[in-house]
Amino acid sequence: MTASLERLSLNQKTTNSWTLPEAVAGCVRAGLHSIGVWREPLAEIGVERARALIDDAGLRVSSLCRGGFLTATDASAFESAIDENLRAIDEAASLDAGCLVMVVGGLPEGSRDLPAARARVAEGIARLAPVAGDRGVRLALEPMHPIFTADRGVLATLGEALDLAEQFPSEQVGVVVDSFHVWWDPQLEAQLARAGRSNRIAGFQVCDWITPLPADALLSRGMMGDGHIDFGHHLQLVTAAGYTGDIEVEIFNADVWAADPDAVVATMKQRYLDVVVGSPGGA
Amino acid sequence: MTASLERLSLNQKTTNSWTLPEAVAGCVRAGLHSIGVWREPLAEIGVERARALIDDAGLRVSSLCRGGFLTATDASAFESAIDENLRAIDEAASLDAGCLVMVVGGLPEGSRDLPAARARVAEGIARLAPVAGDRGVRLALEPMHPIFTADRGVLATLGEALDLAEQFPSEQVGVVVDSFHVWWDPQLEAQLARAGRSNRIAGFQVCDWITPLPADALLSRGMMGDGHIDFGHHLQLVTAAGYTGDIEVEIFNADVWAADPDAVVATMKQRYLDVVVGSPGGA
Repeated sequence: MTASLERLSLNQKTTNSWTLPEAVAGCVRAGLHSIGVWREPLAEIGVERARALIDDAGLRVSSLCRGGFLTATDASAFESAIDENLRAIDEAASLDAGCLVMVVGGLPEGSRDLPAARARVAEGIARLAPVAGDRGVRLALEPMHPIFTADRGVLATLGEALDLAEQFPSEQVGVVVDSFHVWWDPQLEAQLARAGRSNRIAGFQVCDWITPLPADALLSRGMMGDGHIDFGHHLQLVTAAGYTGDIEVEIFNADVWAADPDAVVATMKQRYLDVVVGSPGGA
Repeated sequence: MTASLERLSLNQKTTNSWTLPEAVAGCVRAGLHSIGVWREPLAEIGVERARALIDDAGLRVSSLCRGGFLTATDASAFESAIDENLRAIDEAASLDAGCLVMVVGGLPEGSRDLPAARARVAEGIARLAPVAGDRGVRLALEPMHPIFTADRGVLATLGEALDLAEQFPSEQVGVVVDSFHVWWDPQLEAQLARAGRSNRIAGFQVCDWITPLPADALLSRGMMGDGHIDFGHHLQLVTAAGYTGDIEVEIFNADVWAADPDAVVATMKQRYLDVVVGSPGGA
């Protein structure tokens, strides 16, 4: 049982009401070995204290969430975003995070020029990639479900994220595969195989696509097993692509957030065993 | 002014409270020349009467909505769907519709096997395409926004729809390009160019992607100009791909449906002139 949980990581968003110390303690109580850290709760206690807490608990940091938001048209806003990402890279280095997840940003207010927004993302990544590489941090571009193209992330497919990532050394830029964001993609199998060939999978996140979709699209993610995603198939594909890292559970959902976090973690563990690693396609 | 409205078609869903006779009369009052007909209001008055009404009004039928729903795993349910599509083909032939829009169906209840659902769609289209061809009806596969992959349409991209359509003669199977469904696609330009080369664009629909997304995902479409889509760019692309047919406005939106339909049609005409054909990219 414990061995099967070895790769399971609690992304902090799943237990959104917990501070970072609370989340670290919750991981320890649950017998987990890895945590995905968010920058806002990290800032509340500072990187030094966080590092000490996480080390004392014997946890890995599977990812730091998040950098990105590189689509501003205004030059000074774009430079501010670069500066913010440099700080995020510093934090990721200090925590020895497996990757820095990059949510690249949506269309700027009033703009309908999607190709231009995507071009600015590429420009920003070109600025950040060598710095990240120097710090031993890997940027993980996150292709986001097209429900978020307008307001959150203009990288909409794994193929598009790989087109960008592959312009840089693989130790500088990879992709994060989030089942919720990519499950619908008819090119999923082909693009994950490609990601394997170019050694680009920097992270793997799971949560479910549920219907009817909750009213708030940002909080529309479900616990694994409550929706339509075949996680075993996804795990087979990322495994075939050479990914052996942590499997992070990241759930944005008002009901999950309102529940007792320890109970959420318990359900997460059971579902992970039942429908992710324990399903017919699971490893 | 009248000339600029020549290609504008009112899809009945935009004025959802109108019967078909009311919608035909509304088109005439508004000086429109084309209508997209739905099967349910068509059934209320019968095909013969509808044909006479539409002919008397001097309208074209840009599309019949809709066939599809071909993903059932149960053999008798699949055969029922085939039969229903054969009836839809008959109706489209009787109305001399520009195409029969195919919403192919989502995952069957309890299934997470997306590749299998897609395979059944291909099987269904293979059964229907030659029949449609014999009746002079063109099936228009509708790639749907990935927000609908689970519960409405497993064809998620233009590329995927073309992969399927191109297995059949172009007069039998094409695609319908709906801005709402495809606007986010990083391959939009490349796939529309491909659709032009293989002569596959059977229809072009417009409505906007608005944020925040309305609570009911099915009713989340906005009037052109209220959201994030660059319609002029889309019109340029479909025009470059050789499409010269009608431009249908199809809006599923509770606020639009609650408004006075004549006022909706007036707004639709103005927005069409301003942000579709009249925008910098427009024709």
